[in-house]
Amino acid sequence: MAATDPIEDLVADVFARACTSRGVLENVAGKWGILALAALSDGAYRFNALRRRVDGISEKMLAQTLHALERDGLVRRDVQGTIPPRVEYSLTPIGEKISFKLLELIELVEGEMPEVHAARARYDDTRR
Amino acid sequence: MAATDPIEDLVADVFARACTSRGVLENVAGKWGILALAALSDGAYRFNALRRRVDGISEKMLAQTLHALERDGLVRRDVQGTIPPRVEYSLTPIGEKISFKLLELIELVEGEMPEVHAARARYDDTRR
Repeated sequence: MAATDPIEDLVADVFARACTSRGVLENVAGKWGILALAALSDGAYRFNALRRRVDGISEKMLAQTLHALERDGLVRRDVQGTIPPRVEYSLTPIGEKISFKLLELIELVEGEMPEVHAARARYDDTRR
Repeated sequence: MAATDPIEDLVADVFARACTSRGVLENVAGKWGILALAALSDGAYRFNALRRRVDGISEKMLAQTLHALERDGLVRRDVQGTIPPRVEYSLTPIGEKISFKLLELIELVEGEMPEVHAARARYDDTRR
């Protein structure tokens, strides 16, 4: 057998606080990462269009979010040689896989909202 | 047709900043919510056992996380009438559905870690 990268031999475990997979999960599933990845499932976006789609995100926070996702290999940043340069963000193949799973999660949560509203009303009632 | 709850007639949209579904998604997919819900897929946990499982979480943060998930109807808190009382946390049926989807996301991210490590190394190399 060929020698493998020692990092690849370790089994990732998000429950272990020192495992880097936990940080990646936070980039992906955090407040803004999840919305940016889900939005990019529509196709490539320019920065300002993506900012309008992810309603409420600040310019700084979107830049940080995209930077982290690009570093993790989930988002591609393409600079086209026009004047002024046109910069577009899109999903890599791994980003697409993760985005697809996030969309399933979002659909599930959105679909359960009537139940969640009912649960909140019951909970708040018993503590009034 | 019977009259329905007006809240149920609204379509939830996590991309709209004012939609409550965004807050629920944050409770579910945030740094600690995701790990607590995934851990509870093992079965019921007492507070301290869950705290050990979700390595690195503070007592205060776990209490806040469970509180939010209980209010959203995803986690059940059962107090048994023993002395001292035994308090156990477990998933509700909706919590189970969401936990299952989160586990799929976690497995996907853990499985892609070799690719993520490689992407990070490439990214950091080009910026050295």
